[in-house]
Amino acid sequence: MTVRFGLLGAGRIGKVHAKAIGSNARAELVAVADAFEQAATDLSAAYGCEVRTIDEIESAGDIDAVIICTPTDTHADLIERFARAGKAIFCEKPIDLDVKRVEECLAVVRQTKATLMVGFNRRFDPHFAAVRKAIDDGAIGDVEMVTITSRDPGAPPAEYITRSGGIFRDMTIHDFDMARFLLGEEPVSVAAHASVLVDKKIGELGDYDSVSVILSTASGKQCVISNSRRATYGYDQRIEVHGSKGMVAAENQRAVSIEIANGNGYTRPPLHDFFMTRYTEAYANEIAAFIDGIATGTQAAPSGEDGLIALALADAALRSVKEGKTITV
Amino acid sequence: MTVRFGLLGAGRIGKVHAKAIGSNARAELVAVADAFEQAATDLSAAYGCEVRTIDEIESAGDIDAVIICTPTDTHADLIERFARAGKAIFCEKPIDLDVKRVEECLAVVRQTKATLMVGFNRRFDPHFAAVRKAIDDGAIGDVEMVTITSRDPGAPPAEYITRSGGIFRDMTIHDFDMARFLLGEEPVSVAAHASVLVDKKIGELGDYDSVSVILSTASGKQCVISNSRRATYGYDQRIEVHGSKGMVAAENQRAVSIEIANGNGYTRPPLHDFFMTRYTEAYANEIAAFIDGIATGTQAAPSGEDGLIALALADAALRSVKEGKTITV
Amino acid sequence: MTVRFGLLGAGRIGKVHAKAIGSNARAELVAVADAFEQAATDLSAAYGCEVRTIDEIESAGDIDAVIICTPTDTHADLIERFARAGKAIFCEKPIDLDVKRVEECLAVVRQTKATLMVGFNRRFDPHFAAVRKAIDDGAIGDVEMVTITSRDPGAPPAEYITRSGGIFRDMTIHDFDMARFLLGEEPVSVAAHASVLVDKKIGELGDYDSVSVILSTASGKQCVISNSRRATYGYDQRIEVHGSKGMVAAENQRAVSIEIANGNGYTRPPLHDFFMTRYTEAYANEIAAFIDGIATGTQAAPSGEDGLIALALADAALRSVKEGKTITV
Amino acid sequence: MTVRFGLLGAGRIGKVHAKAIGSNARAELVAVADAFEQAATDLSAAYGCEVRTIDEIESAGDIDAVIICTPTDTHADLIERFARAGKAIFCEKPIDLDVKRVEECLAVVRQTKATLMVGFNRRFDPHFAAVRKAIDDGAIGDVEMVTITSRDPGAPPAEYITRSGGIFRDMTIHDFDMARFLLGEEPVSVAAHASVLVDKKIGELGDYDSVSVILSTASGKQCVISNSRRATYGYDQRIEVHGSKGMVAAENQRAVSIEIANGNGYTRPPLHDFFMTRYTEAYANEIAAFIDGIATGTQAAPSGEDGLIALALADAALRSVKEGKTITV
Repeated sequence: MTVRFGLLGAGRIGKVHAKAIGSNARAELVAVADAFEQAATDLSAAYGCEVRTIDEIESAGDIDAVIICTPTDTHADLIERFARAGKAIFCEKPIDLDVKRVEECLAVVRQTKATLMVGFNRRFDPHFAAVRKAIDDGAIGDVEMVTITSRDPGAPPAEYITRSGGIFRDMTIHDFDMARFLLGEEPVSVAAHASVLVDKKIGELGDYDSVSVILSTASGKQCVISNSRRATYGYDQRIEVHGSKGMVAAENQRAVSIEIANGNGYTRPPLHDFFMTRYTEAYANEIAAFIDGIATGTQAAPSGEDGLIALALADAALRSVKEGKTITV
Repeated sequence: MTVRFGLLGAGRIGKVHAKAIGSNARAELVAVADAFEQAATDLSAAYGCEVRTIDEIESAGDIDAVIICTPTDTHADLIERFARAGKAIFCEKPIDLDVKRVEECLAVVRQTKATLMVGFNRRFDPHFAAVRKAIDDGAIGDVEMVTITSRDPGAPPAEYITRSGGIFRDMTIHDFDMARFLLGEEPVSVAAHASVLVDKKIGELGDYDSVSVILSTASGKQCVISNSRRATYGYDQRIEVHGSKGMVAAENQRAVSIEIANGNGYTRPPLHDFFMTRYTEAYANEIAAFIDGIATGTQAAPSGEDGLIALALADAALRSVKEGKTITV
Repeated sequence: MTVRFGLLGAGRIGKVHAKAIGSNARAELVAVADAFEQAATDLSAAYGCEVRTIDEIESAGDIDAVIICTPTDTHADLIERFARAGKAIFCEKPIDLDVKRVEECLAVVRQTKATLMVGFNRRFDPHFAAVRKAIDDGAIGDVEMVTITSRDPGAPPAEYITRSGGIFRDMTIHDFDMARFLLGEEPVSVAAHASVLVDKKIGELGDYDSVSVILSTASGKQCVISNSRRATYGYDQRIEVHGSKGMVAAENQRAVSIEIANGNGYTRPPLHDFFMTRYTEAYANEIAAFIDGIATGTQAAPSGEDGLIALALADAALRSVKEGKTITV
Repeated sequence: MTVRFGLLGAGRIGKVHAKAIGSNARAELVAVADAFEQAATDLSAAYGCEVRTIDEIESAGDIDAVIICTPTDTHADLIERFARAGKAIFCEKPIDLDVKRVEECLAVVRQTKATLMVGFNRRFDPHFAAVRKAIDDGAIGDVEMVTITSRDPGAPPAEYITRSGGIFRDMTIHDFDMARFLLGEEPVSVAAHASVLVDKKIGELGDYDSVSVILSTASGKQCVISNSRRATYGYDQRIEVHGSKGMVAAENQRAVSIEIANGNGYTRPPLHDFFMTRYTEAYANEIAAFIDGIATGTQAAPSGEDGLIALALADAALRSVKEGKTITV
């Protein structure tokens, strides 16, 4: 079976998915749509697909599934439209920045029995997936405490911050999903601290650039998340999971693993400096899982509900900072 | 100059200090006192010193300084006695489990102008000291976020827990001191979560065995602490400090650094399994710093005030858990 | 410019190259030939190309270049045929097991001014290439001593050994090429030791499975090579280069970089267990370099002469073992 | 039992042994002798022992054992004298630079049934000892191939080179002993290459500063040794042992294990820069083993014969370089 794709949005992340589809033997990229015609035309030339409007993709008989990579404020509307059109839907996170809007949207998805997968790509990173597999294999016994370190190489520009929904909904949301993926139990409380240490402008826009979060579950499992919009040494992405019988950790990744030694010591190169090079395999695996879900008629995780819960945790973290107390979710 | 020592307490930690004194060219162990005479006799035989009573040591003309390694509930009284007797005092942490009692005790120390150093040995670990030196040298710019991982190989027995003052005052207190040592600014808020995941008996005694803490300073610097009374792979003691220009981290330590590879993978031995083997050098360096302080007439850190502040942070962490809110200190 | 390829040989390594061509935007796989028609048909189906005979590829107007992946004893003949046919030629190593035959073949290449590149894929591994780049950038000063460790996960079957030309011409030849790539000077002497430690059958066939080699250059630079047909922990491929100002090393590679810690210690997974997974990127980069050479009209290294010199070093190593002396080349 | 020591030679290595004796509860340093009276006096003051002449130590009733740390050309004579005087003897390597002289000396040792241990300290390094223990425990099956890397931080002065006996007898001799310690079988052939890459003066004195050696045993086990008088990044001391079931390796050692990360990458400090800091524990363990041997009446390895065989291998390596052939021993 070949899944025939329509791609909505030909920007940075759209290209990542176009490439993943192009190198997947079970997928075919049929058409791309973008408000900026040049972007759509360029992508269509590079990946050998047609340029169509969103309306045309919606009504197309030769398209089975769509990838939504448009701006965040269009996600919920597009999910509803394509759910009603009977297409399988892969949507970049977040579904929306507002929990109520997400809930409405998911009601439509349930009603239409549409397939919806949300783009928490990190679950598909081979290293993080191997951590999860080690847990599932019983290598560390019962999970007790999780530590997630996620630090961006640098702060995004002001216009990005403005539309991002804030660091918890934009950046930490990935870690909330990872925490749920690894804890094996829903977080029931959130305590967070946030400050501006990297870029004053971020503070002026009402956002933070440095945050620490403690999540806990009903049985007392804990997860600590450490985020910063700065990491001079590259894209710092680590997890470690402590259990009753041991610990499993995923190390950072770099493009080349050489080491140079001299009088200053032993130096290894900086880490990947961009999420797209760091998570290249994750994006390919993610699309493959989406196709698997369609092919086997099963719901591929992470689902719309996974997207909703991560967003609710982000909202709780923000409240915890504002109110100076642990928030129960 | 040789500093002549009286040792109060011939137990486990007393022996560690006796050994440190024995191998320090500027120190002489003159006498040991212990409520259990056999313990004192054994130590005196092993290290070639006299057995004396505490009273005899207090009034001795041939003793310059004392090391207090007796049970915690005797610390404050002994500090006051030996401060009045004009001896330099090194006291194992904590001074007392009650902040008010510590404050009274420190008032006596100030009044008598006694030298008092508190045993936060980890500041003297060569690896952690090198982390601090890297910060002081400007290697990472301004400190922004600290992560401290401290996990014991196993839970202590019930009788220990009962007298310990609880995990925050017994175990995390070391990390509170380390946080202050590295942040370079006083923490002003504490948010903590605690649960019982390792040993139910600990919970029955009203204590916790697994805790996560977020500290923050006035300028927004953050520190995350992760503690557990369980680490099947040894004594897990790591710190990492992120700054505006880079990151510095101290790795775990093991007795031998070999690696065995076979079809199961590449395996390195577990970590040190005990604080005394892990911190052997730290204990020796700590006593050397105490002697330096006496020799130069300067106050060796960590001082009684450092002990007080760490205890206050422990109290705040406990309140944060009980009240579900961030505590301002 | 798009380079149009004919692939000669649809076996294991043929598929690797078909895949590399398929994912290279400047390459098109036009046709495949194989003595086993089913192999050719399968590959043509998988990669969307035609099945043709070698004769048809030789005379085809729509083919610019060929990849020779046929059995070793056909390489020299095919190189000569396609050199005369005016095609650019990429040939898997070795050109032939006999130095004289290689020399004849290269004479034809020179005479026809054909483009010939030999498949020493390891030069194109990103990690090894980064080692070379560090040298070229002056990071370690003048190269002095090179250590190459190359250990196969397991011994090949008897029929492979029989046709391989022996371990020096089959396996060590890669390391001879790597030594030349890194030393920056031609080896002038070879001392080798060889024995049978892994599989007695290999010895019965007159070959060895464990070898150590010392190469030296005119100015005294040295290279040590350690080879074995056994490595229970995976495909062990390491290089380190010591220079007047420092050292650069490339570490081993594994599919996932996680670590599990428990009472047995800290365990990382075994290495890649196969040359094709270990050198996936190298194969893609190699074909890209071949295309670059065609596109720019320059000779892409490693050339036919590089293939010849590596073979001559293999012959010298074998003589050194047989005669118990250092061989001058 | 306390072993009462006389120390012959109060130089650099003499002090190392004085310190090891001082911190060993079963040892007492009674007297020191040195041709330079000031050296003896200083050491006696530092370690609280008498200054005596060699004659006095030889005839002393209160001395059980001697440590010979005098210049190499006095070793054999002193061993013979103290063997006849009935003292247990620990002698720094080498016994002599001449195999015949060593053989004569060992004949006296045998005849007098004296206890003689030779100072190949590296066998007592905890990391290398753990490698040997892993082999003895069967962790890697049958030993097949050993790789020893030993690189000095810098070249010694000319006067040292002149009296050293050359790099093979001075430096590689440690690796020959380590090879025998790990191979579990005697080497029967030696192939070596040597050149001058670090310091021309060393060449002018007829010595080499960079050597590669291949040893092999009767059953075909192999050992590769790589030596240089230069390592800008510290004292490089590594071993790896490959067996039929796996591999065991000992990593390099550094004083502090921190890592600093920034835009240049991740940097760990250089290695120990001196053999005395690198092998502090080894020296203490070595003396402890010597005392054990005396206490239990057993011969502590490495014996005089171990010293002889390592020297014979050094001679063979030099011949291999000079004659350009593999030398059978």
